[in-house]
Amino acid sequence: MAPTMPRENAPETPTPGDTAEHDAPVGLPVPDVAVIGGGIVGLGIAWEAQCAGRSVVVIDPAPATGATFAAAGMLAPVSELHYQEEDLLDLTLASSARWPGFAASLVGPGVPGTGFRTTPTLVLGADAGDRDALADLREVQAQNGLDVEQLTIRAARAAEPLVGPHISCAYRIASDHQVDPRGAAAALRHRLSGVAAARGDADPFIAQAAAGLLWEGCPGAAAQHPGGGGAERPGRVAGVVLGNGTEIRAREVVVANGLAARSLRKLPEGLELPLRPVHGDILRLRVPEHLRPLTTATIRGLVRGLPVYIVPREDGTVVIGATSREDHNPGVSAGGVHQLLRDAQVLLPAVAELELLESTARARPGTPDNAPLLGRVAAASGKDIPGLIIATGFFRHGVLLTPIAAHIVRQLLGGITDLAWTNFRPDRFSPTIRPAHAGPTA
Amino acid sequence: MAPTMPRENAPETPTPGDTAEHDAPVGLPVPDVAVIGGGIVGLGIAWEAQCAGRSVVVIDPAPATGATFAAAGMLAPVSELHYQEEDLLDLTLASSARWPGFAASLVGPGVPGTGFRTTPTLVLGADAGDRDALADLREVQAQNGLDVEQLTIRAARAAEPLVGPHISCAYRIASDHQVDPRGAAAALRHRLSGVAAARGDADPFIAQAAAGLLWEGCPGAAAQHPGGGGAERPGRVAGVVLGNGTEIRAREVVVANGLAARSLRKLPEGLELPLRPVHGDILRLRVPEHLRPLTTATIRGLVRGLPVYIVPREDGTVVIGATSREDHNPGVSAGGVHQLLRDAQVLLPAVAELELLESTARARPGTPDNAPLLGRVAAASGKDIPGLIIATGFFRHGVLLTPIAAHIVRQLLGGITDLAWTNFRPDRFSPTIRPAHAGPTA
Repeated sequence: MAPTMPRENAPETPTPGDTAEHDAPVGLPVPDVAVIGGGIVGLGIAWEAQCAGRSVVVIDPAPATGATFAAAGMLAPVSELHYQEEDLLDLTLASSARWPGFAASLVGPGVPGTGFRTTPTLVLGADAGDRDALADLREVQAQNGLDVEQLTIRAARAAEPLVGPHISCAYRIASDHQVDPRGAAAALRHRLSGVAAARGDADPFIAQAAAGLLWEGCPGAAAQHPGGGGAERPGRVAGVVLGNGTEIRAREVVVANGLAARSLRKLPEGLELPLRPVHGDILRLRVPEHLRPLTTATIRGLVRGLPVYIVPREDGTVVIGATSREDHNPGVSAGGVHQLLRDAQVLLPAVAELELLESTARARPGTPDNAPLLGRVAAASGKDIPGLIIATGFFRHGVLLTPIAAHIVRQLLGGITDLAWTNFRPDRFSPTIRPAHAGPTA
Repeated sequence: MAPTMPRENAPETPTPGDTAEHDAPVGLPVPDVAVIGGGIVGLGIAWEAQCAGRSVVVIDPAPATGATFAAAGMLAPVSELHYQEEDLLDLTLASSARWPGFAASLVGPGVPGTGFRTTPTLVLGADAGDRDALADLREVQAQNGLDVEQLTIRAARAAEPLVGPHISCAYRIASDHQVDPRGAAAALRHRLSGVAAARGDADPFIAQAAAGLLWEGCPGAAAQHPGGGGAERPGRVAGVVLGNGTEIRAREVVVANGLAARSLRKLPEGLELPLRPVHGDILRLRVPEHLRPLTTATIRGLVRGLPVYIVPREDGTVVIGATSREDHNPGVSAGGVHQLLRDAQVLLPAVAELELLESTARARPGTPDNAPLLGRVAAASGKDIPGLIIATGFFRHGVLLTPIAAHIVRQLLGGITDLAWTNFRPDRFSPTIRPAHAGPTA
């Protein structure tokens, strides 16, 4: 593994020249950072940048209405571990460790609660096949040094009395927690606006769709002149063009609009963003008073090979999710809802007595290796294109990975490239792009 | 059976004195009829009264948002037949026969469509027990002279190719049709407002809750003086008192607000309205293009003893319903939704591929004998109280029974009591009320 630059605790105090630009058109201050996409990842990135002293704008016609709106908010690097995804595990563990501080940074008078809770996760298997599969997963977890405690069925039922009779195995994972993504997004929006106002800046939210990137110089200079070498200086990203034609200039642009990143105009020459929609159905339900609390722990299960989870909120609601459909149907799947209710009732029969408040479907931005596209993009010269950071493709992990994505982007904005995370470079699926792996671009 | 007054085709042309009243406060014209409740029954009653030349008002804070909003709209007297409900069968058949003309009366430029369709109903059984139960039902249907055609499974599948593999029996009922209750309610509202405007009347809709009845004279005169005989003239209902205290005077008041009828103030002395909420969950789904039409017929099934139906709409949606819950949970039941999706998929496996658009729960106003509370109410004298008609307790049959309820009320407003329907008198559950059964009150 490449050496890591240990800058976790070193604040990147921006130099004066970083935080303002005075050659902009009269009356239009140029923000330090323009974030395209106001889902939880984009909001988290904007928030961390703002905390670092930078001025930010967030460009989104409808913030927090995409995958963030659907997400259950499990912060579950251990139970979400998949075989051969150890690189991703490093990232999810690092982000999980950052969630308490990230959530704490959002607390304030009048700020919506994030719903961050350190309650444990109880993993249950239904039939013998589920028991075998979860035993295999536990092996992988143990190999990675993760703490998973096997429970007897009796102990599981003692901890959660409403667990059903058809359970084959149980594990307790103390470190897999939860947050309320809608609450966290609302808190982020509230704090972003509040800090901007306190600084005398305009509100950071631009309720427009981004159409493409705005460049200075030539986006594909070297690529247009094969063999031309590094003679011509490649362009830099200088802002965002909105759907209505307005240009929003910014010192740095972060592309964090999930699946929509694919359709931005003037992405770097040769950059392929292999994002695909992975649809999920998810339910929100109310627990009647006489059944509260339905559970204390988050319940994750494997029921005849299908995953299902039940996340209890402090307000007496629960979230039951989530299907994974690689079809082309963005709406809520009747078969998906049926499957979730059927399998959740195997784990907790009392689910039948809950009130169904909401059935939601959204698309997750999937990538070929299930890991995000996160970092800078190399030009034909091999050097990173100035002014551009990509942060998309978070798939099932957008909420969990928000703090680490925000931290990594904050480092990149400060001129620091942590080599621990270069495996997630967004140009890794672009055969014509060969980054120089030279570290910082500044 | 009591003799029926054959007035079906005799228009009750109101006399001039019936249609206006000039002793009202200056500037406040007194309508002929005030209908409390703007569900489909109340709207239908108002419409029929308006067609008869009467001026009407409909009092409802949120018309057509109760049971009407949930209802699937099956017009199915044959498949809905229950053992020992033959009196109700007469009423449902009479109403079914009225639906084509009733729907036609609502057609007009700019008027929303009612969705009235004469497509047949296919009744399916799942297991052997369901086959036996449906064979028993067919006996009762045959004894009542109803036309039910038994099909082979092969013939059923030829008619509806998406029928699933686990079917034990099939029947075709050509006369059980459907309407779209939301469309019909919208058409009724549109026509009621339009006719009022064309006549130069104020808009008939009063968006307030009714608090109670307004009386002239003494509501319980005789009851307060036991043994007093008929010396004191009993009162008459003269209008409605709104929740905000406003008095709406009217020549006749029709109580058609479902379960809320119970809590009206100043109901007649001794009148018991034994209404109870019977909650139902119902789903609306969209059929993807490649599966259209999902079915041509309405599919009704019995799946391991539980009823389920699938009603296909012309717009490519289907309605799947409905549970019957005698619990106290007005919200959508997770267990109910699970049951509907599970059982509908037994009849039509392709239901799994539909998009779930909406899950809705509403309470039906149930009565002890599953029949409506429909007609005038007797005073202690045995004579009917002038100015008051009750039309509630339609349970599962509100949409089907709307035209006959509207017709019966129109007759009552014209001074005609059809003795065929006195079994449904609203005072039949009131032990202290003994109607004289003397026919017309006028």
